[in-house]
Amino acid sequence: MLKKKPLILLTNDDGIYAPGIFALYKEMEKIGRVIVVAPSGEQSAVGHAITLTDPLRVTKAVRRGKLFGYAVSGTPADCVKIALVSILKEKPDLVVSGINLGPNLGINVIYSGTVSAATEGTMFDIPSIAMSLGTFEDPDFSVAAKFARKLSCIVLKKKLPKGVLLNVNVPAISEKKIKGIKITHQSKITFKEKFEKRIDPRKRTYYWMAGSVKPPRESSDADFQAVKEGYISITPVHYDMTAYEELENLRSWKL
Amino acid sequence: MLKKKPLILLTNDDGIYAPGIFALYKEMEKIGRVIVVAPSGEQSAVGHAITLTDPLRVTKAVRRGKLFGYAVSGTPADCVKIALVSILKEKPDLVVSGINLGPNLGINVIYSGTVSAATEGTMFDIPSIAMSLGTFEDPDFSVAAKFARKLSCIVLKKKLPKGVLLNVNVPAISEKKIKGIKITHQSKITFKEKFEKRIDPRKRTYYWMAGSVKPPRESSDADFQAVKEGYISITPVHYDMTAYEELENLRSWKL
Repeated sequence: MLKKKPLILLTNDDGIYAPGIFALYKEMEKIGRVIVVAPSGEQSAVGHAITLTDPLRVTKAVRRGKLFGYAVSGTPADCVKIALVSILKEKPDLVVSGINLGPNLGINVIYSGTVSAATEGTMFDIPSIAMSLGTFEDPDFSVAAKFARKLSCIVLKKKLPKGVLLNVNVPAISEKKIKGIKITHQSKITFKEKFEKRIDPRKRTYYWMAGSVKPPRESSDADFQAVKEGYISITPVHYDMTAYEELENLRSWKL
Repeated sequence: MLKKKPLILLTNDDGIYAPGIFALYKEMEKIGRVIVVAPSGEQSAVGHAITLTDPLRVTKAVRRGKLFGYAVSGTPADCVKIALVSILKEKPDLVVSGINLGPNLGINVIYSGTVSAATEGTMFDIPSIAMSLGTFEDPDFSVAAKFARKLSCIVLKKKLPKGVLLNVNVPAISEKKIKGIKITHQSKITFKEKFEKRIDPRKRTYYWMAGSVKPPRESSDADFQAVKEGYISITPVHYDMTAYEELENLRSWKL
């Protein structure tokens, strides 16, 4: 008897009709049964938000004349939760989130809807991957999509340690210019924070967030530098945020 | 010449008119100059969201006839960013977020607007504390507020290591029933995820997220168990999510 092909759940934070998730879908179809459950609209920089105060709606989404998946009126984390609890009849073998338009490097990981969706997969003990492309303009998702397929095959075989997901960032360059793959840690980039103050036609003040990244000097073992140098960056990410190295110090405080 | 009293920035995720932040304000006024910059409405479970696609509005908020602070039409993380970049003339000595109505324990930390605000403070190299009260009902914030003041005095003196905030959870019991203080790690609680399916008056389906916590068997060195046993829990939290222990393992994969 033939073994069933693996079931792969795709989601993202750019919305179910974004080009990045479609590029991913076309590659992943080659290796498994693919189901998409993704936000109905753009959900960038939502962090690890979940929707508690509003009801969620789920609607079928069609692309190129066939059922593509389910659009959810919520965040990426909502999508993975509702997919696993209420939409899918079978537990997926893999969750892949992306391909995000724009990198998720360094501290940006905590603002990332793409990564939070993969984190939800991990919380359900499903191997999970977050995929991002290092550009906001004129994206070509094909290199990242092919790499997602290759990495997925390996992860399906090797699995991932409990509580750990892979945060993958692909530089926006042609396949032959990619220097290789680096296993990296989260870079210590900081922001140059800025708010642009403007006046609306009714003479009221409003602000646009307009910060930019301040890249640090780091080796290519840090995610930001690796992508900058032309490597695909893979960072193992977990969600235990305890600063264990500080436990003893704090216990010495007289509280 | 007298030294200026420390400047303390308060924020929260329950909104600027929530009782928890007012209780905190009254205590913190005893030790410093206090300024509040908090969301204009409730922002629970927003995770580490920031507002990129909408402009932010800032309005003055008055409580009991005097200027209390500034209400921001955004998330807790937005509030701290805009306070530090555009509202305050001087860098605060301390950021305190809360007091949240409801605990922020274990994995819930990643969904928490309260903790994300303190994380933003840390990213600006300001010692930061997230305060939560372990109940959703009939809250008495006084014990938590007094403890926030006491802990703030210590943190103002000792500072905190770079990149580390304190996530504090106070059990909702009387002061004399509190057993003491535990320095804890993030508990490994999981969720029993559930969505309630309902039909609206127009016969359309919608879902409410309705998960509940599955507490694990852990010692009182874990935040969840510590609060359950009647201790105030203090967890040092950082935002480097790299699973360092997996770097070598991944490097041994043939990629």
